[in-house]
Amino acid sequence: MIRSFIEISPESHFPIQNLPYGVFRPKSGGEGRVGVAIGEYVLDLSVVDEAGLFVDTSVGGKRLFHQSSLNAFMALGKEAWGEVRSQVQRLLRADEPTLRDHTVLRNTALLRQSDVQMLLPAQIGDYTDFYASKEHATNVGIMFRGKENALMPNWLHLPVGYHGRASSVVLSGTDVRRPKGQMKSPDAAAPHFGACRQLDFELEMGWFIGPGNHREEAIAVENAEDQIFGLVLVNDWSARDIQSWEYQPLGPFLAKNFATSISPWVVPLEALEPFRVACPNQEPEPLPYLRAQGKSSFDIRLEVHLQGAGMAEPQRIATSNFQHLYWSMAQQIAHHTVAGCNLRPGDLLASGTISGPEKESRGCLLELAWRGTEPIELGNGEKRVWLEDGDQLTLTGWCQGDGYRIGFGEVTGHVLPAFE
Amino acid sequence: MIRSFIEISPESHFPIQNLPYGVFRPKSGGEGRVGVAIGEYVLDLSVVDEAGLFVDTSVGGKRLFHQSSLNAFMALGKEAWGEVRSQVQRLLRADEPTLRDHTVLRNTALLRQSDVQMLLPAQIGDYTDFYASKEHATNVGIMFRGKENALMPNWLHLPVGYHGRASSVVLSGTDVRRPKGQMKSPDAAAPHFGACRQLDFELEMGWFIGPGNHREEAIAVENAEDQIFGLVLVNDWSARDIQSWEYQPLGPFLAKNFATSISPWVVPLEALEPFRVACPNQEPEPLPYLRAQGKSSFDIRLEVHLQGAGMAEPQRIATSNFQHLYWSMAQQIAHHTVAGCNLRPGDLLASGTISGPEKESRGCLLELAWRGTEPIELGNGEKRVWLEDGDQLTLTGWCQGDGYRIGFGEVTGHVLPAFE
Repeated sequence: MIRSFIEISPESHFPIQNLPYGVFRPKSGGEGRVGVAIGEYVLDLSVVDEAGLFVDTSVGGKRLFHQSSLNAFMALGKEAWGEVRSQVQRLLRADEPTLRDHTVLRNTALLRQSDVQMLLPAQIGDYTDFYASKEHATNVGIMFRGKENALMPNWLHLPVGYHGRASSVVLSGTDVRRPKGQMKSPDAAAPHFGACRQLDFELEMGWFIGPGNHREEAIAVENAEDQIFGLVLVNDWSARDIQSWEYQPLGPFLAKNFATSISPWVVPLEALEPFRVACPNQEPEPLPYLRAQGKSSFDIRLEVHLQGAGMAEPQRIATSNFQHLYWSMAQQIAHHTVAGCNLRPGDLLASGTISGPEKESRGCLLELAWRGTEPIELGNGEKRVWLEDGDQLTLTGWCQGDGYRIGFGEVTGHVLPAFE
Repeated sequence: MIRSFIEISPESHFPIQNLPYGVFRPKSGGEGRVGVAIGEYVLDLSVVDEAGLFVDTSVGGKRLFHQSSLNAFMALGKEAWGEVRSQVQRLLRADEPTLRDHTVLRNTALLRQSDVQMLLPAQIGDYTDFYASKEHATNVGIMFRGKENALMPNWLHLPVGYHGRASSVVLSGTDVRRPKGQMKSPDAAAPHFGACRQLDFELEMGWFIGPGNHREEAIAVENAEDQIFGLVLVNDWSARDIQSWEYQPLGPFLAKNFATSISPWVVPLEALEPFRVACPNQEPEPLPYLRAQGKSSFDIRLEVHLQGAGMAEPQRIATSNFQHLYWSMAQQIAHHTVAGCNLRPGDLLASGTISGPEKESRGCLLELAWRGTEPIELGNGEKRVWLEDGDQLTLTGWCQGDGYRIGFGEVTGHVLPAFE
């Protein structure tokens, strides 16, 4: 196993095997630039580039990393990503003296994560949210339409998705204000306006698109993974009472567009290769344009932690896994583009809530507390059916290797009360 | 009535009372820049600015118009828009010698529209499509759910909307490839993949957002019009067979995201003031956050023209009016932001299909040919229930003043056959 000259604990999310990309600004000042997480440090790629350390790559000197977004780098594609990744990995190896033994350069290039402010990793042109977990779609269907009609007739034939709101995608740590909106109780004659009472999270993962495609040109499922720059954790905050009144017939709108939080570090697809697994068996067999060969999912353990205002520490309320997703990322990309829609560098696609077969693997409160009928119990005697003001909700996830973790860090957000 | 030194016919869409903004590139070469349409000419605002002709305005010298999008100008807000508009109007008046009598400057600043290539007027961050015509929603409801349940229960209480795809918004004149996708006939056991057989247009109008709002801060309905930079024609191309299979429960996706066409000239809201009319009566009265005072709609005549490959000239197949819309633009903006969603400069909002009460005022083929059951007849003996390959579909619209028109030009697109 390769090791870095930087000491990294086995529980760290950011060993030399990971090397996720992010955009940051030193707290001491300066513009946004691109970095790579390593242990408790960030390697400033703009410094690496300026020092001429990107040798034999097509990206050196292009100032790709002196930018406050990853879009330009994402646009370059898989080969360039691989070159940079291997160069960065080499620089950080225990047996490589370039940075290790050059105190001035090392101190300029490596900043403590606590000394930087993370920024959104990309300028997101369009954000698409899918609905790719069969367990989630089934649970929601049972609650809203009964067991007989739980899955819509189309669900097993195509990855259902819809367009989300790009402007309100925010970085982990951003507070989330309880939204106000129009709702209607089932027994009320007319709708009312007020603060959402059924505020929820959704445990999702998202992936950033690389070069993309031209309008009219579909991306074939077998090439679709080449478009995946990397993955992040996504919390698709949801106002269930606003949603149930507004969503017919054009889908969720205000129930979702007040905030969507993402984690700051984008984990390269290449770092996930050792954790490849098969998708669940797909029956009926999808149409040919969605038929994929080989293993197209990943074993990523996912956790949800909730800390109420009166709780001394966060409590884990759900444990799921990316591999529960029925539709693969490749299938979602192929479907998204099959009618001619163009994806652009920096576009964000997300999976939808990732629920598993067990009760504790459900990825949102709607499911965990079964639409308000089965409160979940927190350690301090509190219960929850929906999120309360003051709650801190954190998603985390990692792949467990032999003595190391490929982690995603976390995406967290604090619920603020609605405006008066 | 004020007149320009440029001769303009009474049927022109671009008299001195209009002055819509657009982005163009001279066919002879050069970068994209901002212009204003006047008769058969474009006034190049980058030249006007460089010549120092923006006097007493806050925008002179900021190179706002040396850009290939209107976003920076849109961001400045109503006061700046008004200043520039009045300066441009003054420069073009018959009694103003500055441009009129300065041959060199006039020939540099005024280009024939036939000598320029129009570009998308803005970099669209997010695109939202509403469903604001009661007649359209009712007709669609009758066809899909029967007369008793035509309007969904929420429809009279809120302007239903959803997020569209920003990446595939294209300029008038862009060819539209017939999409392929997954569909299922009602009597088939399983879906199939193939070329869309129910390709449709939708007659809509859209408006570009000015300064926008911060996340969490709703825009009050009484201030919402201040956010409207200007309006364009929108053709929301739709694949009805793909839509009917995919849209449950999250709304239209591939059925709409292959292309949305807009007209190139953005007509300022100020130019529409003389044509202000009341919205239809709203019963039941909307909740307070949607209650607007005064006239909040506009009398804009809209037409749809179709020319099949074998037709010598286009034929008008529908005539509608913007004032049929039940929900005003201000109400749509207020609703969009009430739960905290942020709008950004250059965001595009569209109305949804604008149908009126008469059969000939229906704004899409789905309605005009009543879901394929009542073919419309074209002059040359041809019929249509859906768009055919080779069809050229054109939307146009204008406000009719006394001896002049405030026009929107047109949005046109040619249907290409699906890829083999």
